[in-house]
Amino acid sequence: MNIGVLGTGGVGQTIAAKLVEIGHSVMIGTRNVQTTLAHTEPDVYGNPPFSVWYKNHGTLKLGSYADTAAFGEVLINATSGSGSLAALSSADAASLNGKILIDIANPLDFSKGMPPSLFVSNTDSLGEQIQHQFPTLKVVKTLNTVTAALMVNPRLLADGEHEIFVGGNDAEAKAIVTGYLKQWFGWKHVLDLGDITSARGTEMYLPIWLRLWGTLQTGLFNVRVVR
Amino acid sequence: MNIGVLGTGGVGQTIAAKLVEIGHSVMIGTRNVQTTLAHTEPDVYGNPPFSVWYKNHGTLKLGSYADTAAFGEVLINATSGSGSLAALSSADAASLNGKILIDIANPLDFSKGMPPSLFVSNTDSLGEQIQHQFPTLKVVKTLNTVTAALMVNPRLLADGEHEIFVGGNDAEAKAIVTGYLKQWFGWKHVLDLGDITSARGTEMYLPIWLRLWGTLQTGLFNVRVVR
Repeated sequence: MNIGVLGTGGVGQTIAAKLVEIGHSVMIGTRNVQTTLAHTEPDVYGNPPFSVWYKNHGTLKLGSYADTAAFGEVLINATSGSGSLAALSSADAASLNGKILIDIANPLDFSKGMPPSLFVSNTDSLGEQIQHQFPTLKVVKTLNTVTAALMVNPRLLADGEHEIFVGGNDAEAKAIVTGYLKQWFGWKHVLDLGDITSARGTEMYLPIWLRLWGTLQTGLFNVRVVR
Repeated sequence: MNIGVLGTGGVGQTIAAKLVEIGHSVMIGTRNVQTTLAHTEPDVYGNPPFSVWYKNHGTLKLGSYADTAAFGEVLINATSGSGSLAALSSADAASLNGKILIDIANPLDFSKGMPPSLFVSNTDSLGEQIQHQFPTLKVVKTLNTVTAALMVNPRLLADGEHEIFVGGNDAEAKAIVTGYLKQWFGWKHVLDLGDITSARGTEMYLPIWLRLWGTLQTGLFNVRVVR
C-alpha cells in the first residue's frame, strides 16, 4: 500500500522505516525538502540529521507535505502538534478527500518550560481541531500515548500485554486502523475510547506520561488496563 | 490515630468507613452538620442519604469542616474539587499548621456537560492551588486516579498488581503517606511522580479515566505501569 507519513522527526522516521520494512511504499513528508536535507547537525535529542537517516533508507521517498498527502492511500500525522494544521493545510483538498488520517501528534507546548504543557486541552483537542478543519478526512487518534519505539514494536515490553487506544468519528475507519495496529506493528490490545472528542483524554494523558518518564528515567513504558 | 476526613460523599464515606474498620478514630466533616443529616433522598448516584449511612457507622464522628480539621492528626480531602478550597478555608489556621493533607479531590467541572471537564488544568492544578493557599499544610496528592472502592481495597483487582501515584513537595510527608497507602489499604505499588506540580498529571488523567469508564462500563479498573 502507498502510505504518506507527514513529519520527518523521530516519530515519523520510526513509523516510516517500519512500514518500509514490512513491504509498503512510503513517502515521508516535510515542509521544505531542500531545507530538511540540508540539516547537518544532530537534532535536539542527539539523533543524526535527517539526511543521514534518509541515505540509509533508500527505498523511502521524500516529498513535500502536499506530495506526501497526494501519494498516500492512508496518511499518518507524525508532525509536531504545533505544525499539524499547517502541514495538512498545504495539501490539496483532493489529496485528503475520504482518506484515513492516523493522528499520532500531541499538542505539546514547550514555550512555558519543562515538562511541556498542552496548547489545546480540556474542552478541545488537536484531534478534534484536525477533524473540524478537514472534515473530509477520517481522523483516527492513536499511538500518541507511547514512545515511538513502542508504537511499532509493542512486544518490546511484557510480550505486548499493554494497551493502545483509538478514537474517532468513523467506525469503519477505526476498525481499519485497529487492523493496521495489529498487522503492521503487532498490537494485541486496542481499546476504542469513542469519538474524536476522546482525543482530549489521550492527549491530556501526556502530562502524567511525562511525569512517569521522569520517575522511571525511560520512555519505554506503557499502561496495562487492569479490570 | 485521629483522622479527619473532609467530605461526606461516596469517597469520604468509603475512606472513613475503612479507617474506622482498621481501628482509627475518624471524624467526617461537612459544611453544615444539620443540613447534611436532614437529607432524606438518595444522592445522584442512587446511594442512600448520608443520615442512613451515618446511623450504620456508630463509632464515627460527624462535625463541621473546622471541627474535623481540628480533630485530625492527619487530614484527608474528599470534598468535591469545587468545594475543596472553601472547606479548608473554614478551618482555623492552627488546625492545619504542619499537618499532612492527603488530597483525593479532582477539579471536575460538570457545568459543560458530560463527561465533565476540569476547572483547572494544564499549567496549574487543584493540588497546587491547595498547597499555595495553605502553605503550612503538607499536601500529598494521591488516590484521585481510581474509584473509591479501589482506593481502600486495591486487591479487588489483579491481587493489587496495579499502580497508585503520589505527588507533593514534602519528601517526608510523601514517605509517610506511602506507608499509609500500604498499611491502611494494602497498596503494593506506589509511584512517586515528584512535587505537587505532578498533580497536573494525575488530575489531567481524569479525562482518559472517564473515557475508559465509558468503554469498560465499570469504574472498577486501574492501570499497571508496564516497563
